[in-house]
Amino acid sequence: MAATEACVIGLDFGTDSVRALIVRAADGRELATAVCPYPRWKQGEYCDAAANRFRQHPLDYIEGLETCIKNALAKAPAGTAAQIKGIGIDTTGSTPAPVDRDGAPLALLSEFAENPNAMFVLWKDHTAIREAEEINRLAKSWGGVDYTQFEGGVYSSEWFWSKILHVLREDAAIRTAAFSWVEHCDWIPALLTGNTNPITMKRSRCAAGHKAMWHELWQGLPGEEFLVRLDPLLKGLRERLYRHTFTGDQAAGTLSPAWAERLGLNTDVVVAVGAFDAHFGAVGAEIEPNTLVKVMGTSTCDMITSGMPAQGERCVAGICGQVDGSILPGQLGLEAGQSGFGDIYAWFKDVLMWPVEHLLGPELMLDADTTQRLINKIDGLVIPALSEKAAAIAIEESGVLAVDWMNGRRTPDANQALKGAIAGLGLGSDAPRIFRALVEATAFGAKAIVDRFIREGVEINSVIAIGGIPRKSPFIMQVTADVINRPIRVAASEQACALGSAMAAAAAAGLYRELSAAQKAMGSGFDATYIPNPENAQKYQRIYERYQKLGHFIEQELTD
Amino acid sequence: MAATEACVIGLDFGTDSVRALIVRAADGRELATAVCPYPRWKQGEYCDAAANRFRQHPLDYIEGLETCIKNALAKAPAGTAAQIKGIGIDTTGSTPAPVDRDGAPLALLSEFAENPNAMFVLWKDHTAIREAEEINRLAKSWGGVDYTQFEGGVYSSEWFWSKILHVLREDAAIRTAAFSWVEHCDWIPALLTGNTNPITMKRSRCAAGHKAMWHELWQGLPGEEFLVRLDPLLKGLRERLYRHTFTGDQAAGTLSPAWAERLGLNTDVVVAVGAFDAHFGAVGAEIEPNTLVKVMGTSTCDMITSGMPAQGERCVAGICGQVDGSILPGQLGLEAGQSGFGDIYAWFKDVLMWPVEHLLGPELMLDADTTQRLINKIDGLVIPALSEKAAAIAIEESGVLAVDWMNGRRTPDANQALKGAIAGLGLGSDAPRIFRALVEATAFGAKAIVDRFIREGVEINSVIAIGGIPRKSPFIMQVTADVINRPIRVAASEQACALGSAMAAAAAAGLYRELSAAQKAMGSGFDATYIPNPENAQKYQRIYERYQKLGHFIEQELTD
Repeated sequence: MAATEACVIGLDFGTDSVRALIVRAADGRELATAVCPYPRWKQGEYCDAAANRFRQHPLDYIEGLETCIKNALAKAPAGTAAQIKGIGIDTTGSTPAPVDRDGAPLALLSEFAENPNAMFVLWKDHTAIREAEEINRLAKSWGGVDYTQFEGGVYSSEWFWSKILHVLREDAAIRTAAFSWVEHCDWIPALLTGNTNPITMKRSRCAAGHKAMWHELWQGLPGEEFLVRLDPLLKGLRERLYRHTFTGDQAAGTLSPAWAERLGLNTDVVVAVGAFDAHFGAVGAEIEPNTLVKVMGTSTCDMITSGMPAQGERCVAGICGQVDGSILPGQLGLEAGQSGFGDIYAWFKDVLMWPVEHLLGPELMLDADTTQRLINKIDGLVIPALSEKAAAIAIEESGVLAVDWMNGRRTPDANQALKGAIAGLGLGSDAPRIFRALVEATAFGAKAIVDRFIREGVEINSVIAIGGIPRKSPFIMQVTADVINRPIRVAASEQACALGSAMAAAAAAGLYRELSAAQKAMGSGFDATYIPNPENAQKYQRIYERYQKLGHFIEQELTD
Repeated sequence: MAATEACVIGLDFGTDSVRALIVRAADGRELATAVCPYPRWKQGEYCDAAANRFRQHPLDYIEGLETCIKNALAKAPAGTAAQIKGIGIDTTGSTPAPVDRDGAPLALLSEFAENPNAMFVLWKDHTAIREAEEINRLAKSWGGVDYTQFEGGVYSSEWFWSKILHVLREDAAIRTAAFSWVEHCDWIPALLTGNTNPITMKRSRCAAGHKAMWHELWQGLPGEEFLVRLDPLLKGLRERLYRHTFTGDQAAGTLSPAWAERLGLNTDVVVAVGAFDAHFGAVGAEIEPNTLVKVMGTSTCDMITSGMPAQGERCVAGICGQVDGSILPGQLGLEAGQSGFGDIYAWFKDVLMWPVEHLLGPELMLDADTTQRLINKIDGLVIPALSEKAAAIAIEESGVLAVDWMNGRRTPDANQALKGAIAGLGLGSDAPRIFRALVEATAFGAKAIVDRFIREGVEINSVIAIGGIPRKSPFIMQVTADVINRPIRVAASEQACALGSAMAAAAAAGLYRELSAAQKAMGSGFDATYIPNPENAQKYQRIYERYQKLGHFIEQELTD
């Protein structure tokens, strides 16, 4: 390998901050990393949580990326900047923004600088619920092809077209000024390479396929007829978007002179095509064909890659989406996920914290600051303490049974109207017993996804976990391994997304022939493996049947 | 009324203590009251909570009654002792004890003084679960009359025959020494009158009918053939028990010279036949024909009296029992109840207290005593604070739906294997929303009982509440009134049971021609009425249908 000292940068745009990770291309060794929170976002600007409106200003991204790359370079060994060969980028998504003819997000123009509709509509913005409903209704009823079929058959308010339509309807000024739209992960490579022309910038296969209903079967985006029937406002937009898309191992171009100067890098640095954070996280965690990678945090994102079946692509029912090349080039990337995972433990913790939050301060006659510090301290102790107690309770002992739909159900078979439940409650059902049932329920939710993949003919040879929970909770991981009855390896890298971006950068820069070779050389490996206990697995199989019964009842009888 | 200055004593034997209430017979005005905890019971002697074994020593009762009557007399105006005309007695039940040929509970004999099997088996003792199952199995299968039919069709481990059989099987010495058995409420009048002969002592109709399967239809207790088939150990016992029973307005006799001297009372004081506390509570709360009296505490006891139907007595399906004269002479006394009421709120409070109980002391570096004081303080604040917040939440707003079977279900249709549930949970379901759902669930449990009485042709003209909850929680009472869609009057007396005993004493002593006249003259009236809001009632009707669906599912699909 000639490029022994070559380095690459992985840029990971998260919800709250952007991280730059500089690694040696030969073996992935971390040389430096830096994080920069988005300054405007941190102040809560342009957002309205009560209305579920979450917008991010493009300047947050621009300033953040410049600062964190410079900070990382400053921490890296001398001479690193000259060795940088590539930059890879991952972002949240779907996070689209309207752009002008030159590809500038409208919020960068002075007249729109403070207009939330001119900014990036963050993945978790839910203002477009009505538009998503209209898309779903039309897709099922218009008589033409169902464009939602490869996105799980249910289009979300969190996705590209819902958000575009919502903003265009709501804001006449944007309607006039928006020439086209870009995903966050399309725009950063475009910005860095200087090719911001919306028609020619290299669009991410991952974003297009999973969120914009792009598919080769219908030569790209949904047909003009469909879009115009959805709303005449969309007339002509398709032609101002894109036909072709690119996988993350491809080069978007090289660093523009302006950005090379700004960052102190060479103009021959290759900028890779962008992708979503979870997908590059799977790459960073060394996903292989038929490996399930679970990003386990507040919710889960479950990704698997699979070779194209001999008889051609067919839909896997009830998952979030399947896109050729969205994770690994040449492999079908399938995505599923649980709407609530760690969020469910946090919810229960919040319920339990009620007396501490409301009664303690006045009772102890503490001032507001001291009270808050005490609350925060206790708050941080609850889940670890509950986990310890819950781990000591025998399976099947308590009889408490929960269903994990407190935030709806993403997969299998998306239904956001569903709610969670806790049954089997007796006067002896204490907090650890309920917590244990909630952990089991989230594991059952994971099993439902695994079972669906298997039923649909997608083999799963191994399971890898990344995210906050695998690093924090051996108890939750062991229960999950027992319930799905498969070993789970925890990726050693704490920055799997940024590492995956760095691998993509190395492949795009030609340092490796293929992304898989970059993964092999640069991967951090695994630092824990949870092996299922066969006896526990058998017990959980019985409880899982009760979970399914209760879930079926909730869906059929308690859901409007 | 000649007896203007005549006084009576109501003696109320509760689970933890005995109370004496001295009132003026003419108008029920309270002259003095005194409470005496049971000393041995307080020390936890003869009990094993883990094994659900709860026994009480007869000396606790004897010492308690003497002390509290003397203390009450000492507090009463001078000369009261000479004016006492009657003593009425209520106790918990079924609380039976083995007695010798002279009617002495065996624990009063020196060789059995420390043997728990020689003591009173307290109502909540659950050691006889297996025996109850055998009784139920035999009653349904033996081909003869079903002796459980007027006790709701399901015989309980808390009742007379289960407990007798259990103790006789377990303890050979008791088997030999036990000539007969007495209920606590039979034995106290026997003791005070000096007629402790087990064959001739006046037995309580209420205890016999509700707990011992006594009924006129089969001339008293279950037939010898049935009992011997249950276990040959029971051979001959029926003949050493009783044929006839007496209502609470009857005299058991007059005070024996020994007890008259011991208490400082006259030997012409009439001692009334005893009854269970809840039933005399209903009397004290001025129960009338077709009035539902709800004793609302940790659980509920729901009592109603009804004239005998013209076509003769028929079974009301799925309630706890129905006994001619068990509450008011000449009226059918029907009993139902919820296994969990206040207990369910206390359970939720305990769940919420987990962080305070486990994390606060160490975090604040408090010593054990200070920690416990703080925990107790917060513990007492939780339910009132939750009630306040919950009361402000609109009906149907949260979507949280609970079923109140955390302690099983007593009525309608007893099933102790059932468990509670909370459904409709979202990430926004906070502690007050869940608490509100639990309050609604206990009210739905109350409605299920009301609806069952109505369906079975038992009219309910008015509803009266007594017990701890009606005095403490206007929120819970209003929700209950809205859900059952009937006004609920709260009895003004805080000592309804003791007052009911006093009324019975006045009737038995001939100060009134009938118990109903004593109720009318001596009653304390009502101090609050909860009027249902028709709009709320309508909303609750909709939620109640969901409650029934969820309950049906739990019973059919989740219960072994």
